[in-house]
Amino acid sequence: MIFFDNASTSRVREECLNILTHFYINEYYNPSSLYSPSVKVSTKLKQAREGIIKALNGSGNLVFTSGGTESDNLALLGLSLPKYSNIVLSSVEHSAIYNTGNHLKQLGYDVRFCKSDSVGCVDVASLIELIDDKTSLVSIMHVCNETGAINDIKLLCRKIKAINKNIIFHSDGVQALGKIKIDLDDINVDLYSLSAHKINAPKGTGALFIRQGINLTGILFGGAQEKGLRPSTENVAGIFAFEKAIKLALAEIKQHNETFRQIREKIMRELPKIDDKIIILSNENCADNILTFASNSVRGEVLLHALSDREILVGTGSACSSKNKTHRIPEALGLQKDYHDGLLRLSFGIYNTLEEADIFVKELSIAYDYLKRFKRS
Amino acid sequence: MIFFDNASTSRVREECLNILTHFYINEYYNPSSLYSPSVKVSTKLKQAREGIIKALNGSGNLVFTSGGTESDNLALLGLSLPKYSNIVLSSVEHSAIYNTGNHLKQLGYDVRFCKSDSVGCVDVASLIELIDDKTSLVSIMHVCNETGAINDIKLLCRKIKAINKNIIFHSDGVQALGKIKIDLDDINVDLYSLSAHKINAPKGTGALFIRQGINLTGILFGGAQEKGLRPSTENVAGIFAFEKAIKLALAEIKQHNETFRQIREKIMRELPKIDDKIIILSNENCADNILTFASNSVRGEVLLHALSDREILVGTGSACSSKNKTHRIPEALGLQKDYHDGLLRLSFGIYNTLEEADIFVKELSIAYDYLKRFKRS
Repeated sequence: MIFFDNASTSRVREECLNILTHFYINEYYNPSSLYSPSVKVSTKLKQAREGIIKALNGSGNLVFTSGGTESDNLALLGLSLPKYSNIVLSSVEHSAIYNTGNHLKQLGYDVRFCKSDSVGCVDVASLIELIDDKTSLVSIMHVCNETGAINDIKLLCRKIKAINKNIIFHSDGVQALGKIKIDLDDINVDLYSLSAHKINAPKGTGALFIRQGINLTGILFGGAQEKGLRPSTENVAGIFAFEKAIKLALAEIKQHNETFRQIREKIMRELPKIDDKIIILSNENCADNILTFASNSVRGEVLLHALSDREILVGTGSACSSKNKTHRIPEALGLQKDYHDGLLRLSFGIYNTLEEADIFVKELSIAYDYLKRFKRS
Repeated sequence: MIFFDNASTSRVREECLNILTHFYINEYYNPSSLYSPSVKVSTKLKQAREGIIKALNGSGNLVFTSGGTESDNLALLGLSLPKYSNIVLSSVEHSAIYNTGNHLKQLGYDVRFCKSDSVGCVDVASLIELIDDKTSLVSIMHVCNETGAINDIKLLCRKIKAINKNIIFHSDGVQALGKIKIDLDDINVDLYSLSAHKINAPKGTGALFIRQGINLTGILFGGAQEKGLRPSTENVAGIFAFEKAIKLALAEIKQHNETFRQIREKIMRELPKIDDKIIILSNENCADNILTFASNSVRGEVLLHALSDREILVGTGSACSSKNKTHRIPEALGLQKDYHDGLLRLSFGIYNTLEEADIFVKELSIAYDYLKRFKRS
């Protein structure tokens, strides 16, 4: 099986599994309990938190959540934004931001969506145009989950705060973590979302970085865990596996990106030979692990199934919206209409090899040639 | 190590660990993806959902969450309760309900707290008295996490709906699951919260049962998972482990309760010999796995640490509030003031044995006699 859908989720790595097993069976104690084995877990939790903050060079706090979606929700809904203020998001944000934005709109906020270029990068002029003295929050993803496009968050933060220094800047870093360099103090974001299961740690764990001085209130109510910002017994096993996965991912980032680049280049070279009308959306400025392309001859979903029959797993874009038939993303990318249903996203992970790229190209070519015969009218 | 704090959390059982490992390493696919290995996971997710609903005999839906706290929040906040309506909770509810209730109060709802008896059972007359034609929601826990007190939810539901048939009844079943019989259709609750990590499944997973016809909207925003009620990639490994743990717990309920009863009776018999002023809060009508008592001579926290030094782990009540020094629970139980700091909660689990009860009594006696000498003035 060739798994080229690592941006949707990923296999838990052995090093994380060992940690999970240990905390499931041995140190399973509730970190809020008062006896010493619990205090030990609680101390380790503190160390994991500090370890992650340090690894990402952030001056602030880190709240553990159930995943990227909850982190995004906590960021946008946990801020007590002034009524009548406006909020600016990009039009290619993940649904966890996009739909939370729509919810804020329903609550009466003026939610504005800035344009992106054809790769999924925020159009800086369009973003700046939407900012004014009533803007309270800007949320722009670091790496686009659909195309791998990298936004220059440092530049955006600087430009935006130059216009209005009170703006809070959030970035969804779910697809950036372990794929590109993250230096939270350098890019100067106020809030930054992370997810574990995209970097070979288990599903059900995420985190939100909160810069010192940013006031957030919890969106769930209950116990006093996570400094009152996120009640519920902490998923300690998941958190410790997450910490390990982050450290490993950061240590191996160059090595894996080199492989991803080679895989991507090989496939990019071959795609025009399969069909010279294929549009490649990702470019060399995108994160190395994502390659998205579109066809106007074969539907992405059909191609996905044909490849799946040949033991190759790819995506048609975000899994979170794969069952929702909308064209929000291709529209935002300005893709020609006849390509809208032809999107395919390949996303590589630590277990992929260059040989798999060869097999992929071969199988894609066979499947594509076969399917093109049934070209949509 | 003797672990008598299973109501705070519990060790993951071997059968769950096997499932977790399988879904971490082999079937790690995102259930929202479109290819067949994901569809297979998605189908299993559906089966797990239906399996749990069937095991608890409920006519309705089950939404998987990150735990009991989120389930409680989703129940109370996901209902679009009419403004100016009132909400009735018991005064001994877990903080996940109690503090969500306080949040609703801040939003302008009339939130009322009914009394409990000295064991933690809801005082039926006090509850009924608070109900009127403007009551929109009642939330009463099935088993009290502090004492093991069992509320007759069937009776309460019937009485309350006889007064006002439009009232929605929620029950926090976190401490009931696997400990007492749960028949959702028989007790006729509308919403029912569950948690995995109290029944030897991992932390980070819970569920909310929603009776057919009850309209709920999600409290987090994002993808369309869980029929739009709970976005975020499903924690499939945790969910399948949870399902397994539920089935095992229900199959073994009699066997384990028999052991719990024996452990509890043995300790109950010995407590008066250690100090005849000890007040035993739990009684034979409580869930078999919990035994809570209070002393006016030795502080619970001090006793907890002394026992911890002797490798016996117990609680002073809910771990979720153990670091919060309030007397909400002893006050609600009407406990004499000089006993307020003297609470100790023992909660038994599937790995406990009768022999451990002997050791506990012996060690408690030694620790107690020693500490009593420093009796508080």
